[in-house]
Amino acid sequence: MAHKLEPLLNPSSIAIIGASDNPGRIGGMPIDLLVQFGYAGDIYPVNPKYESVFGRRCHDRVEDLPFGIDLAVLAIAAEDVAVMLARCHARGIRAAIVYAAGFAEAGESGAALQRTVEAFARDSGMLVAGPNCMGFANLNTHAYTAFASVFKTAPRQEGRGRVSLLTQSGNVCAAVFAIARELDVPFSQFINTGNEACIDFSAYLDYLAEDAQTDAVIGYIEELRDGPGFIRAASACAEAGKPLIVYKAGETDKGREAVRSHTSALAGNQAIYRAAFAQLNVIECQDFAQMAHIAELSRYRDRSAGRRVAIVSISGAVGAILADKCIGAGLEVPTLPGALQDTLRAGIPDYGMVSNPIDVTGNVVNDPGFVRTALGALATAETIDTIIVYAPGYLLDRMADDLAGVSAQHGRLIVAVDTGRATRRAYLRDAGIPVMTDIGMTMQALAPFLHWQERRARKPWRALAQACRPLPSGPDRLARNEHEARAWFVSQGVPTIAERIATTAEEAVAAATALGYPVALKVLSADVPHKTEAGGVQLHLGTSGAVREAFHVMLANVGQHVPDARIEGVVVQKMAPPAVELIVGAVRDPVFGAALTVGLGGTLTELYRDVCHRLLPVNAQDARAMLGQLKAFPLLDGYRNAPLRDVDATCEAIAAFSRAFLALGDEAAEAEINPLAVFERGHGVAMLDALILPAQP
Amino acid sequence: MAHKLEPLLNPSSIAIIGASDNPGRIGGMPIDLLVQFGYAGDIYPVNPKYESVFGRRCHDRVEDLPFGIDLAVLAIAAEDVAVMLARCHARGIRAAIVYAAGFAEAGESGAALQRTVEAFARDSGMLVAGPNCMGFANLNTHAYTAFASVFKTAPRQEGRGRVSLLTQSGNVCAAVFAIARELDVPFSQFINTGNEACIDFSAYLDYLAEDAQTDAVIGYIEELRDGPGFIRAASACAEAGKPLIVYKAGETDKGREAVRSHTSALAGNQAIYRAAFAQLNVIECQDFAQMAHIAELSRYRDRSAGRRVAIVSISGAVGAILADKCIGAGLEVPTLPGALQDTLRAGIPDYGMVSNPIDVTGNVVNDPGFVRTALGALATAETIDTIIVYAPGYLLDRMADDLAGVSAQHGRLIVAVDTGRATRRAYLRDAGIPVMTDIGMTMQALAPFLHWQERRARKPWRALAQACRPLPSGPDRLARNEHEARAWFVSQGVPTIAERIATTAEEAVAAATALGYPVALKVLSADVPHKTEAGGVQLHLGTSGAVREAFHVMLANVGQHVPDARIEGVVVQKMAPPAVELIVGAVRDPVFGAALTVGLGGTLTELYRDVCHRLLPVNAQDARAMLGQLKAFPLLDGYRNAPLRDVDATCEAIAAFSRAFLALGDEAAEAEINPLAVFERGHGVAMLDALILPAQP
Repeated sequence: MAHKLEPLLNPSSIAIIGASDNPGRIGGMPIDLLVQFGYAGDIYPVNPKYESVFGRRCHDRVEDLPFGIDLAVLAIAAEDVAVMLARCHARGIRAAIVYAAGFAEAGESGAALQRTVEAFARDSGMLVAGPNCMGFANLNTHAYTAFASVFKTAPRQEGRGRVSLLTQSGNVCAAVFAIARELDVPFSQFINTGNEACIDFSAYLDYLAEDAQTDAVIGYIEELRDGPGFIRAASACAEAGKPLIVYKAGETDKGREAVRSHTSALAGNQAIYRAAFAQLNVIECQDFAQMAHIAELSRYRDRSAGRRVAIVSISGAVGAILADKCIGAGLEVPTLPGALQDTLRAGIPDYGMVSNPIDVTGNVVNDPGFVRTALGALATAETIDTIIVYAPGYLLDRMADDLAGVSAQHGRLIVAVDTGRATRRAYLRDAGIPVMTDIGMTMQALAPFLHWQERRARKPWRALAQACRPLPSGPDRLARNEHEARAWFVSQGVPTIAERIATTAEEAVAAATALGYPVALKVLSADVPHKTEAGGVQLHLGTSGAVREAFHVMLANVGQHVPDARIEGVVVQKMAPPAVELIVGAVRDPVFGAALTVGLGGTLTELYRDVCHRLLPVNAQDARAMLGQLKAFPLLDGYRNAPLRDVDATCEAIAAFSRAFLALGDEAAEAEINPLAVFERGHGVAMLDALILPAQP
Repeated sequence: MAHKLEPLLNPSSIAIIGASDNPGRIGGMPIDLLVQFGYAGDIYPVNPKYESVFGRRCHDRVEDLPFGIDLAVLAIAAEDVAVMLARCHARGIRAAIVYAAGFAEAGESGAALQRTVEAFARDSGMLVAGPNCMGFANLNTHAYTAFASVFKTAPRQEGRGRVSLLTQSGNVCAAVFAIARELDVPFSQFINTGNEACIDFSAYLDYLAEDAQTDAVIGYIEELRDGPGFIRAASACAEAGKPLIVYKAGETDKGREAVRSHTSALAGNQAIYRAAFAQLNVIECQDFAQMAHIAELSRYRDRSAGRRVAIVSISGAVGAILADKCIGAGLEVPTLPGALQDTLRAGIPDYGMVSNPIDVTGNVVNDPGFVRTALGALATAETIDTIIVYAPGYLLDRMADDLAGVSAQHGRLIVAVDTGRATRRAYLRDAGIPVMTDIGMTMQALAPFLHWQERRARKPWRALAQACRPLPSGPDRLARNEHEARAWFVSQGVPTIAERIATTAEEAVAAATALGYPVALKVLSADVPHKTEAGGVQLHLGTSGAVREAFHVMLANVGQHVPDARIEGVVVQKMAPPAVELIVGAVRDPVFGAALTVGLGGTLTELYRDVCHRLLPVNAQDARAMLGQLKAFPLLDGYRNAPLRDVDATCEAIAAFSRAFLALGDEAAEAEINPLAVFERGHGVAMLDALILPAQP
């Protein structure tokens, strides 16, 4: 069954409302492009001012058109859009693109116009793209509906396009297209989404995941409007083995500010986007040229490849540089097994190197039989996934036949790097060997591509896509203070430390005696969120006298700091043994929903931003992976002869916290265990404090 | 006066010993290049096998040449080099280039050959480049002495070269040259240093600092052999306003391993290289293409520029991306003053933006007068140093005249970014406006260039260059234990906490009573470097009983951990009040000499690598800059309502430590204050422990 966006993205007939005979005007440029590039479908210009434009008959009114045209391009003013959409719909037109600005991005009156359009689209079922969008292009059918001169200025595309471009900015769409065309990346769809009043980024992505003409997607995102939809569509891309290569704007506040003004969209929490991208195997980029290069690499995505790289270089220095960059990018450059080194040693001069990076020296090209033997051995080595060959200019040309031969015989990815001007680049590319021309860009593109290949096999997106199962039921009402919050998490399986509530000094002493000394006292009040700062925490109390004194001192402190605080009592807690303290928190992200954060507790973690995020659900195994990503993980793992910590219990507690947070549903905006004390291996963990914050009404 | 390397790098006559008539052989290629490119000096091929090569008469023997030729290129085997050098010298030849491999990089027999060459050069005064080097090229005089086919394959250079290339790898030299020539960077010198037996990287750099044909230097460093020489030559480049753009190999162990095998050079401590580069205003790069782009920007180095950037974009999205990247790279994108915003608002549509980034929208090109007004206002704004203009293709062409006009009127640097195919790029470049063609590379190149411009004005290298003043005198002998180490630093002005030595429990109690409780006890023994691990530290002792017990427990612990340790006593120290603890250390780096390290104390700093390095001398002001670079600096600066710490006293203590370390001279390999306790503002600092490690004999 055809995808519902088919009339928009693969139309067999196009009407241009507000047609012009001037190729520099918005009503003229698409017609000019359609005619020039030889669009095979029907073109219907509409404008009573003209008899004909670009050699095509021009119609006076929409009502004069044949019934049931696929797509109308509305090159008319914002205030005329709603009425024209209705007229198009009445004429059986199935989809429309609205160029006009002056909608939600332009204040309240524009927003009202946009709501009218949205309501019409919803009620009529008509597909409406934009408004405030530059239009599209289907490069394979030459269905140009975009107002973009770049199609004429960028290098002309021959042959079938296979990469699709999907962006939330028209200018970015044009810029990325131009850069990628210089690299001869062949495009299928060119889509920019504009204000996304009726059709959002995720809906287009869903189309591209299914589209047989799309092998890879380059995306530019300012803000997603439909997180769950994005999760579904990105998962579909991942399942289909199509790399989704994304630039997410808004890294810094300054950038964010501009994004806000630009598209009336608030840039979301970049860290949670990043977590979602990792879980969905989305390749996040920092640079347009990088995206274009990864799209080019995606042509070779069905060759076997992975993180363990062999580097074959005619230069020891460049081999070392490539090895450095691989390792810096999280790839491995394994030392080769002895037998393989022996094979290589047979053909490599003494001043070369046979471990990895392999310095074959420039002389190697004089011995083609050896090049083939060496590459063949690497292409079948069990400890290697991918081979990088550095040979500039004529040296690469001299090796080209051998490279092609090995590539034909083995499925393993070989990447050639040519900083010279090899003449056989096209030959190598057709033989399944990408040729990169810059060392830095090679690594910027290849490393994310190889990580993508590794994750592709592990399918991390499946857990997310299945997240919509029924939730466990939550509590009757949300916790009102930290004691109740702890109680809720305890009921869900998070271990804690023994505690009691006391309302008088004598009750506190009795509780301490029952729990066993030493104890900690913490004031209990929903009105005192920062207990330590308010003097509401006293630790290491070893005697009844100390408990009694602390009780009074603490209440006096809090009374001074937060005079109106309603004090519900004092929590008496058994002092925990020495522990590594973690923070485990969750938020309900407006785009992606529940997301977990794990980090080392304490002040420094914030300064060093050593935290890891992940969309829920998170099981114990996921939690283990998150802990492993913390720079502070060695503290749990016997760093400098410190005791090993109970990582298994930590992971179980994190998983229990995650389930418990999901069970709270939309009522809870945030929850946090801080700290989670991690004891020595075999001694478990304990939640020392927790809180749950309700969603703002 | 001509630089002493003149005969080597700017020869007026060249002999090729071992000449060949085959342009593919090492004895043929340089002659081929000299002839083809029209070298104006005299060329003297030498080889008894030929009558003539490349149309030049070939001489049988060196002794047949006219006396006093500038330079001989030795295309002969390693074992013949020493004798040939002597013959050349006897014939009055002033300089020689040795291509042959088989010297220090090839084991002991090669090393012996190299020592012979070194001794000859030293005794004779002859300039000997290499061995194991690819040769040079002076692109302006066409004096090609390099065996490198890249000169024929890379785009031909027209006009005067102004960038020089200086590398420790021939292949890297060729690769960078090829990449930079694709960008039309015009070269002056092409130098690769080989084994640097007699002339090292710094000596060549010294030449380039003086060379009137060199405006900027691209360097590739595996390992410097002469740190002080590099400091002098890099300072000379800095004084001359010549950017020194460097790639330092050996970031990771894997890379380092390859470097070691490749050039028999040990890669030094990357962090100290980085510190030296920062102090010398060397631009450190991660990528060859980045180096080429910075070299291109250096053409515009005399325009006024700095870190505060205004971004003018025809696209809000691309403006936001540029702002993000600027901020991420440590530049500033200041919000514009109100009056300036008003000026801009007059010509920018409502859907644009006037703060910064400035979204002028694509329509702006229809109003050239406004473009000129707006750019003129930015080019004179006090809060702006540099202007970036994003306008792709024909939009940039339409603005070109206005850009050129503003550029001619004001000295401020304007950088254009064109992701399309503007036709007026050359026009803009000649008008003083660099045109970049990739957004990512723009920032990779521009940000370091602008940081260079800022530092250029501050001249940080001068303190280093003046470091060779007489040192204060050191102690009679090096400290033998931490008590003596502390005493030395105290004598040099580092504050400490009151302490006494005790040899019995009763002496310890007496000391504690005199100092005042609470106290700490620390075992004193040069044989127990890790006192805490050995149970040799007891803190927070509040009573005489506690001191007595701790004394015995501690000695028992240490006796168990280090049975043979000679215990010199126990240090009784007054417990310091709560403090932020720093580590302050110094090492004697084999390349650069004394270097200081400052970081937050404790385990996490190592995990997070939050430390700052700097070559000595370091004064209090430098120390302040170092502290400010720590991510943990907010801990000293009132983070989260914590008390402000005594940063002034910290800086004075660091400066005192630095002077004290310098005074120790070569005898000390390392010294460390760990921790340096930093108290609240006005309460100073205290060295709690220190050590001095002697140099290995």
